[in-house]
Amino acid sequence: MFFASDNWAGAHPAVNERLSRESTRFAAAYGTSELDLSIEKRFNEIFEREVAVFFVATGTAANSLSLASIARAGGLTFCHSEAHVIEDECGAPDFFSGMRMVAVEGPNGKMLPENLIERIARYPQDAVHHGRAAAITMTQATEAGTVYTLDEIDAIAKIAKDNGLPLHMDGARFANALSALGTTPAEMTWKRGVDVLSFGGTKNGCWCAEAIVFFDPSLARDFSFLRKRTAQLFSKSRFIAAQFEAYLQDDLWLGLAGHANAMANRLRAGFASLNSARLAWPTTANEVFAILPKAAAEAATAKGAKFYDWLEPRDMPQEVGKDEMLIRMVTSFATTEADVDDFLSICAAV
Amino acid sequence: MFFASDNWAGAHPAVNERLSRESTRFAAAYGTSELDLSIEKRFNEIFEREVAVFFVATGTAANSLSLASIARAGGLTFCHSEAHVIEDECGAPDFFSGMRMVAVEGPNGKMLPENLIERIARYPQDAVHHGRAAAITMTQATEAGTVYTLDEIDAIAKIAKDNGLPLHMDGARFANALSALGTTPAEMTWKRGVDVLSFGGTKNGCWCAEAIVFFDPSLARDFSFLRKRTAQLFSKSRFIAAQFEAYLQDDLWLGLAGHANAMANRLRAGFASLNSARLAWPTTANEVFAILPKAAAEAATAKGAKFYDWLEPRDMPQEVGKDEMLIRMVTSFATTEADVDDFLSICAAV
Amino acid sequence: MFFASDNWAGAHPAVNERLSRESTRFAAAYGTSELDLSIEKRFNEIFEREVAVFFVATGTAANSLSLASIARAGGLTFCHSEAHVIEDECGAPDFFSGMRMVAVEGPNGKMLPENLIERIARYPQDAVHHGRAAAITMTQATEAGTVYTLDEIDAIAKIAKDNGLPLHMDGARFANALSALGTTPAEMTWKRGVDVLSFGGTKNGCWCAEAIVFFDPSLARDFSFLRKRTAQLFSKSRFIAAQFEAYLQDDLWLGLAGHANAMANRLRAGFASLNSARLAWPTTANEVFAILPKAAAEAATAKGAKFYDWLEPRDMPQEVGKDEMLIRMVTSFATTEADVDDFLSICAAV
Amino acid sequence: MFFASDNWAGAHPAVNERLSRESTRFAAAYGTSELDLSIEKRFNEIFEREVAVFFVATGTAANSLSLASIARAGGLTFCHSEAHVIEDECGAPDFFSGMRMVAVEGPNGKMLPENLIERIARYPQDAVHHGRAAAITMTQATEAGTVYTLDEIDAIAKIAKDNGLPLHMDGARFANALSALGTTPAEMTWKRGVDVLSFGGTKNGCWCAEAIVFFDPSLARDFSFLRKRTAQLFSKSRFIAAQFEAYLQDDLWLGLAGHANAMANRLRAGFASLNSARLAWPTTANEVFAILPKAAAEAATAKGAKFYDWLEPRDMPQEVGKDEMLIRMVTSFATTEADVDDFLSICAAV
Repeated sequence: MFFASDNWAGAHPAVNERLSRESTRFAAAYGTSELDLSIEKRFNEIFEREVAVFFVATGTAANSLSLASIARAGGLTFCHSEAHVIEDECGAPDFFSGMRMVAVEGPNGKMLPENLIERIARYPQDAVHHGRAAAITMTQATEAGTVYTLDEIDAIAKIAKDNGLPLHMDGARFANALSALGTTPAEMTWKRGVDVLSFGGTKNGCWCAEAIVFFDPSLARDFSFLRKRTAQLFSKSRFIAAQFEAYLQDDLWLGLAGHANAMANRLRAGFASLNSARLAWPTTANEVFAILPKAAAEAATAKGAKFYDWLEPRDMPQEVGKDEMLIRMVTSFATTEADVDDFLSICAAV
Repeated sequence: MFFASDNWAGAHPAVNERLSRESTRFAAAYGTSELDLSIEKRFNEIFEREVAVFFVATGTAANSLSLASIARAGGLTFCHSEAHVIEDECGAPDFFSGMRMVAVEGPNGKMLPENLIERIARYPQDAVHHGRAAAITMTQATEAGTVYTLDEIDAIAKIAKDNGLPLHMDGARFANALSALGTTPAEMTWKRGVDVLSFGGTKNGCWCAEAIVFFDPSLARDFSFLRKRTAQLFSKSRFIAAQFEAYLQDDLWLGLAGHANAMANRLRAGFASLNSARLAWPTTANEVFAILPKAAAEAATAKGAKFYDWLEPRDMPQEVGKDEMLIRMVTSFATTEADVDDFLSICAAV
Repeated sequence: MFFASDNWAGAHPAVNERLSRESTRFAAAYGTSELDLSIEKRFNEIFEREVAVFFVATGTAANSLSLASIARAGGLTFCHSEAHVIEDECGAPDFFSGMRMVAVEGPNGKMLPENLIERIARYPQDAVHHGRAAAITMTQATEAGTVYTLDEIDAIAKIAKDNGLPLHMDGARFANALSALGTTPAEMTWKRGVDVLSFGGTKNGCWCAEAIVFFDPSLARDFSFLRKRTAQLFSKSRFIAAQFEAYLQDDLWLGLAGHANAMANRLRAGFASLNSARLAWPTTANEVFAILPKAAAEAATAKGAKFYDWLEPRDMPQEVGKDEMLIRMVTSFATTEADVDDFLSICAAV
Repeated sequence: MFFASDNWAGAHPAVNERLSRESTRFAAAYGTSELDLSIEKRFNEIFEREVAVFFVATGTAANSLSLASIARAGGLTFCHSEAHVIEDECGAPDFFSGMRMVAVEGPNGKMLPENLIERIARYPQDAVHHGRAAAITMTQATEAGTVYTLDEIDAIAKIAKDNGLPLHMDGARFANALSALGTTPAEMTWKRGVDVLSFGGTKNGCWCAEAIVFFDPSLARDFSFLRKRTAQLFSKSRFIAAQFEAYLQDDLWLGLAGHANAMANRLRAGFASLNSARLAWPTTANEVFAILPKAAAEAATAKGAKFYDWLEPRDMPQEVGKDEMLIRMVTSFATTEADVDDFLSICAAV
């Protein structure tokens, strides 16, 4: 019953097997091997267009360097008030990009378009004191377990375009969002107006596989220098490439995300049918936020379940009772039906 | 005949096996798992004292964050003029630490103590315009394939101590140096006066395992924030820990470095007995710099050998003829005797 | 009728005369002259204790370097949501200090203690992902023209102390606040718990005189390097010292601020007695925010009056009518009663 | 006998008078006043073309922001090994620009073209590990008191052009160089290929007047944000403009520099005719490096003379005897013939 985070899971056997195979041979270092180059081409197929792809070590690096690549002097990046780039990366985006993150409010982890418009309007291009609007970043799936619909992405992208701002997508849980929407990578990104994507594989079956995808290759012009200067260029880069090869082969990645989402659906359905517990707000990807009796949480913990007590967001839609608590549960490719059912049984029994 | 660099090798089977095993289970993320903690203790044993250990993604990160952890405002770090920190890391040490790297000359890749003393003396502690001496970093084994003897480390450490400066050691090839000197990790580091160490495993049998070791734990006080803010905290950190577990078990790491050095010795001996080729300067670890007839280099390349043409260092001790070239050859845990002998045969035949 | 900002005024004759006198002699550069040192002592008297004082070029520099001097890795600085450090300095505080500014809401430009407590609680000292609380900064007088009372400063200082955070005060309009409260520099700062102060002279009669005052000299240990490295060390620093000499002599500075505040009082009283215009919110220092008929604003502008249209703050306490506008008016040492009366007459006439 | 530095002098009466006049009026802040704009136009005339001009607080800021405006990710700036940007600004150029300064050797404070070519060649545009050549900066007059001839500037500019690198000139003593060469501002800068200039007025009769001049306005696109973000935008910017107005009027600046150079010539001639003292190396601007008997230096100091003991440069062309010392003497607009003659008399008497 490991629901603490999807990054508590290990690596999928196929990824692992591919890594093993890679370990026995020699190949050129620093991202110049044939394997590295072939994976970059694989991303072209996945996204149905020519893209520029770069591997980095962590999701924090993917976001921070994405923003660094589109930074402007005195620039401001607009993000949701609960976004990782502003609240969970210890200032790495600010440090790497030299930009300030500006929080935009909105329910369920999504920026509300009118709020975004209002915030951007406060920072016109000649606002030397305030700084100028320079980028927008959105998280898909969001930190609240929700997913922007294609129409919602369109709305954000339109604001970006209207203001001449590049649009970044934090896709730490890209596959989960894709699976939840039932759409294609191209439809969810550049066809909507996304310019740069943090493409995460680590949470969904790899152990270390993060990439930055530039849909506009001109934005990547300085990237190899930005990456090296931030200590993100792996010498044995091909081991990242190997993980992506297995991950992307035969739609493995989509299958894994589909499974994680299905396990979250099972949890959601379970909570809906319980009297003792309930969903804190609706989610569609692989995160579930629930309000439980403290006794249930304690009972589950006693049986080895792992999950996080969650700080109530500012726009918490319902009250948490005195004897209750808000928890976050995350499913992954490695979550089993038994894990879910066991947890629900414990709740039902309280 | 892969002599381009030791980072062209894959991963040792024992490391690979341990990674496979790790992939099947759940564990806490971000370096908090029991495995992570147990490996930290393992470093205590290796170094015969309590140390603080942190994993990072690359050797560049290990060096840059080591320096960041001992940085002072307006500080200067003294290093050899050919050191990685000044010439091969695209300014990452400067960016992470906010310090300037000051080049110190010396033959064979080693700082000459009198040069170091003279350079430091130019930057006293109240030199607000020039900046102040703040740290010394030395590479062991050096970028020139040589190794500081224990006495030579003592000499550098004394200068550090006399000037109140922390001493960092870039140990990207730490095991090779250790094996060449036939000494212990403790003797080569804190017993000599080293304060912080970049401990590299990647070049010697892991695929991604770099650590920073603080012999003075008080220097590590802010480190977890420095690391997160530079995007170097792996979510699935335990996969680094797993590599180190296998790497350090039963002295595997020392065996691998011993093998690499033995292969380099075999190359050195071979060149010494050839008329057509010769060593450019003496080395003792797993790097060999040789002067070959261009014809020999071409013949080897035609048969698949990989090595680098090398830019002559400023203090190149002998002339390279018109029909000759200077090359660098690096051996690794994966180099075979056959690789070495085949290469030497090609040279002999020209 | 120059009400655009107090930095539209020139320099007071006494300051100007002292500068003229200084121009005819030689003296040591970079802040080492006897005049520089004597002014530092003068600050000891003003603040009734030994302080460390450093001159810088701009108010932005004073704030940014103050925060840099108390910065911690991964640190967060808490400030009011409309504070200069977050909204008007183009990210200079973030760049110089490496910290992120976290907005705290509160009416009338002042942080509400309960909001401040709640925000700080979200960033405990081991919060490596979120970053850790590292400093609090308050503006006195505030950007909204209000002034924290001594009790209100106590409340903020208590929160700082309870959380082990240094407290910075942005005193770009320090003299105006002092005059409004009728208290002493010591009472308004270190006796309340302020650790570092941006002491501004430019807006109140100098043309370029900004200083950072450290009440805890140990915080200033690295400051000379921080200042030089950010290009804020004047070669002819003594010309700053000269301005401060005149400014601080015979309480000139308090007289000038008292005059500016009196002119603001005259404006406030005038608006209170008008039917056509009204105060937007109560202020006590030298800034007045008023709601006028657009026709009045246009008439004043036509007669040469200068003031700023003001963006409504988020917590705007009353509505601005369709034919009205919100303006900001700032008085200075150079504002005359005639300026004020002329402006009020124009409003009255509409 | 104030020969310590030209920044020990005060301000010229004309500059002072203009400042006094400026102090009595109101005007728009932050560089937007009519005076600011008119001075920008004045620079067009001085340089015989349209330029973009920005005022900053210090020479360090002028150099550091010049380099920041032409910075590239992972970029390297080539400068003389004794240049201010590398040795006297506490890392401000590195901090503001994110670039590393690379030292180029050459006698008499001037980069030797062949050394510059050799250094640049080590950093090709795809050298992701080493960093890439991004800018060249030269000091005119140099830190060694010498002046690049127009032909020598051509040689450096050709290297810049051949390598596609922007060329910056540190003109802290621009007027002294101009006067020494007897040429025009245009001839010494953009007509030779200089792209950005640090134009210093402080050492030559102002008390605080430094400007950055962009000959290619497209390089200045982001400059207003870079300047604000580094806390270099004066609120009462027009006081800088006022100094420049007086400084540039009726060729005052050229007259002042001519006077300073003449006083240096008088010193040089004096030393040439003495037996007891001699010039350390030839200079042509307002700095003189001399080798004196220690007794002479002590005698002069006893009579109130100010000058600096000077650390011998690495390429010191002649020996300094055991009873001698190397000193630096700098003349300024305020140096008198009597100052010079008194000093020489003391030397002659020893």
